[in-house]
Amino acid sequence: MTTPEAREEAVLEAVGQRRELVNEAIPEELPIQRPERLYEASRYLLDAGGKRLRPTVLLTTAEALADVEPLSREYREFPTLDGDRIDAMAAAVSVEVIQSFTLIHDDIMDDDDLRRGVPAVHREYDLETAILAGDTLYSKAFEIMLETGAEPDRAVDALEVLATTCTKICEGQSLDVDFEQRTDVTPEEYLEMIEQKTAVLYAASAALPAILQGADEETIDALYGYGLDIGRAFQIHDDVLDLTVPSEKLGKQRGSDLVEEKQTLITVHARERGVDVEELVDTEDVDAVTEAEIDDAVGELERVGSIEYAADRARELVDQGKNRLEVLPDNEARELLCDIADYLIERGY
Amino acid sequence: MTTPEAREEAVLEAVGQRRELVNEAIPEELPIQRPERLYEASRYLLDAGGKRLRPTVLLTTAEALADVEPLSREYREFPTLDGDRIDAMAAAVSVEVIQSFTLIHDDIMDDDDLRRGVPAVHREYDLETAILAGDTLYSKAFEIMLETGAEPDRAVDALEVLATTCTKICEGQSLDVDFEQRTDVTPEEYLEMIEQKTAVLYAASAALPAILQGADEETIDALYGYGLDIGRAFQIHDDVLDLTVPSEKLGKQRGSDLVEEKQTLITVHARERGVDVEELVDTEDVDAVTEAEIDDAVGELERVGSIEYAADRARELVDQGKNRLEVLPDNEARELLCDIADYLIERGY
Repeated sequence: MTTPEAREEAVLEAVGQRRELVNEAIPEELPIQRPERLYEASRYLLDAGGKRLRPTVLLTTAEALADVEPLSREYREFPTLDGDRIDAMAAAVSVEVIQSFTLIHDDIMDDDDLRRGVPAVHREYDLETAILAGDTLYSKAFEIMLETGAEPDRAVDALEVLATTCTKICEGQSLDVDFEQRTDVTPEEYLEMIEQKTAVLYAASAALPAILQGADEETIDALYGYGLDIGRAFQIHDDVLDLTVPSEKLGKQRGSDLVEEKQTLITVHARERGVDVEELVDTEDVDAVTEAEIDDAVGELERVGSIEYAADRARELVDQGKNRLEVLPDNEARELLCDIADYLIERGY
Repeated sequence: MTTPEAREEAVLEAVGQRRELVNEAIPEELPIQRPERLYEASRYLLDAGGKRLRPTVLLTTAEALADVEPLSREYREFPTLDGDRIDAMAAAVSVEVIQSFTLIHDDIMDDDDLRRGVPAVHREYDLETAILAGDTLYSKAFEIMLETGAEPDRAVDALEVLATTCTKICEGQSLDVDFEQRTDVTPEEYLEMIEQKTAVLYAASAALPAILQGADEETIDALYGYGLDIGRAFQIHDDVLDLTVPSEKLGKQRGSDLVEEKQTLITVHARERGVDVEELVDTEDVDAVTEAEIDDAVGELERVGSIEYAADRARELVDQGKNRLEVLPDNEARELLCDIADYLIERGY
């Protein structure tokens, strides 16, 4: 019986190993070329770091499906279920490139200054360059997804998942913006929004290897569901972390969601419990808020049980997602996918 | 022997007939759905009008390849070269949707207020919504291109053309922005920039039906070249029109390229002839410039032969593009493609 600490350490090591490989692949798939400033801006956030969780889910799912030992095969020539080889790393990079595109455009829309501890792209460069860098990553993600070498019918299905995923991300972001003007968002509406804004890219990451490797519909659907579940849990946990992790560790002001009056599952729940969420923090300026104000706000949210409620929902989603993995062969990679799911809601930042 | 006037009238009628069909197809492919505000913003510019030149090129090329009489077949069930049926209209709408996405984001980058006589999307709505509307159209274009029903290997090739086209448009736009800071752009550099920014979407429009209908490489390449030629000619003629057509007819201030110090083939040429292009117009504010100032500037550009130079280059490109069409069967649709090429540089606005 392994301890939780040992399990978390094992997950971090597994994620770290794949992150290194993904980090090597990104410049190969997205070299700095003419016009250099555009490609430098496109790479800026990708090069600034990131956990590479979505590519890790994709690569590990590929291993679980192919029933091979983790890290025992080259991702660039990965076995399908019928004896062909595909470039699973291209798919993994494609998903990370989509993630990066959405962050660049989201930071413009939210007018955020910092991301991953460095200036947002529209701050480091300018608005024009940031819009264009995001647009470039968008089409590059499709180009890169076309480089897996999968059979044409599978490639078409993969491209369709990628396109519909991007559409849903936009719809989710639009709902998120709309929600900022509303004070009557229900938990169900919030969960639908984060499904579209955040979870669909986890779902695509889990389903894409199944599509590209030629798995059956049932397997593809189960893996898509796993991604939706853990992706929503990830977002809910992110909302919890925004309130509970020190600013230095977060890389941005703790409680900034409250200051900016963004809806989270926590605030939506608290409002249902009669809390005047808009009045929890006086200022709407992230630079003006004090740690004491945030402490008081968090205390109130704890008192009405909203933080615990969110944490419970995240745990339920992770358990549901893990159950869906029974469609996979019983192997080490499947275990790792379970551990990654747990890690998403146990991580400290 | 038909007169030029009769030919132009015939082109306008042919374009108008296809425009109506494209206009009917746009709401079918891109219905207003939840979240409504996002889809309304995405449709705003598409619904405001537009000549639909790129879809018209696509549909007419499909007719020329299939060797059928113009408008004699349903575009939704269009014959391929080997007896299948594809939805050519889906491809046509996809291309127009890409065009609309680039206009929405370009208007933000250029901070333009008007487009097609109506406010730009970021003015009618707001910056966030405009970015997101463009992003939504981007993925929708890929979704729509996947609805042609073409064989998977052809669908993959079509998607690849669409993705690389979008990347090149971004690269071209980036070069265009860079050029605004430079006073040593050569005509060759300018032509490369407009090839990427503008012509590749015409090239894709002409090549896509060949790909989807199963034509050979030589045909695909020739049609791509036709599109590159007429697309560059189109952009050069646009630059000429910006100086020569009254503001009311243009739907924006005449000479706005000069005021905003945008590079055009005309200014690049004039600078080589010793004209201090930056001093041609005193103000950098489109609302402050007078018609007399524009008249003087145009007079100077005419004196050094820059407008004539640009018009000559556009004519050469159109003639070159028309020659490439010899790869097509000799039919009425091919004639129409020739006439469309002429129209692109003879149109008054």
